[in-house]
Amino acid sequence: MEFTIRAATLEDCKDISRMILELAEYEKVSDQVKIAQRDLEQDGFSKNPFFHGIIAEVPEHLKSKEDSCMYLFTGHSKVGYSLYFYTYSSWKGRAVYMEDLYVMPEFRGKGIGKALMSKVSQLGLAAGCTQLNFTVLDWNKSSLDFYLKQGCWDVTSDLGYHCMRCEGDALEHLALGGL
Amino acid sequence: MEFTIRAATLEDCKDISRMILELAEYEKVSDQVKIAQRDLEQDGFSKNPFFHGIIAEVPEHLKSKEDSCMYLFTGHSKVGYSLYFYTYSSWKGRAVYMEDLYVMPEFRGKGIGKALMSKVSQLGLAAGCTQLNFTVLDWNKSSLDFYLKQGCWDVTSDLGYHCMRCEGDALEHLALGGL
Repeated sequence: MEFTIRAATLEDCKDISRMILELAEYEKVSDQVKIAQRDLEQDGFSKNPFFHGIIAEVPEHLKSKEDSCMYLFTGHSKVGYSLYFYTYSSWKGRAVYMEDLYVMPEFRGKGIGKALMSKVSQLGLAAGCTQLNFTVLDWNKSSLDFYLKQGCWDVTSDLGYHCMRCEGDALEHLALGGL
Repeated sequence: MEFTIRAATLEDCKDISRMILELAEYEKVSDQVKIAQRDLEQDGFSKNPFFHGIIAEVPEHLKSKEDSCMYLFTGHSKVGYSLYFYTYSSWKGRAVYMEDLYVMPEFRGKGIGKALMSKVSQLGLAAGCTQLNFTVLDWNKSSLDFYLKQGCWDVTSDLGYHCMRCEGDALEHLALGGL
């Protein structure tokens, strides 16, 4: 299937916002999404952006080809995305973090997810990164198997890393000096 | 005990590098540290830095006060640090990630760690972040207890998030298209 991977622009934020919600629905937590199109525009496409994005797009001319039914059904030519940003390991240095990797259900199994992940890896290596990091939910066995097959390893299982978070009142309190 | 927390500068990289090694020794993985002073200088203090840092410093005049023995013993006035950078949650938006939090053993129990973490929280809130994220090793119960007491929660235990990583040959392979 023909598709392209390209850098996201301001004009993609509406579709990214739609797909963020679709991904959250898949993960059964759509009520957790507090981010809308305007936040993405502001946080990703102003000076010193908090993230970067890439888009998987099906070309317009596919409308009239074998995938036309799918295309018409979904009504979207932007069918996948990844958000990423650069981070740092005090042991290994520059790293790239893949926040999301999503392909619409109707377009899975065609190599689009792998192409998105490959692009993030390319961009990371080009920026001097030695690691690609991301998280996966423990119940999402199909994604975990896909990642393991690509040579990724589970830092939580193998080294015992736990992700910790502070937010809301606790974060405000911590900023004031903590307990 | 008197101490100050301030933004790290290029001149702090030697001490940050020293303390990164001390922290890795504490975590029993000092052979994993591939980052030296020059990497920190280049990656943290050039245009578009990959991280920011703060330093906990004991003032010079403490040499002649109650902590003088400790001070002379360690030979260091820079006694703690935190590295952090800004990240993004596609659900909640802007976030700050605390990569390291370290206080030299001789200076623990004096509120320096909490002050460093508080400062990272302040900086995060000022930048519009709604989350502070970090990782902790599952065997490090004293740190985990400290963080839980501050109102942080364990995303891995509570939601099943696993940290995943791709590096080395696997990352190169993924960049070429994956398996």
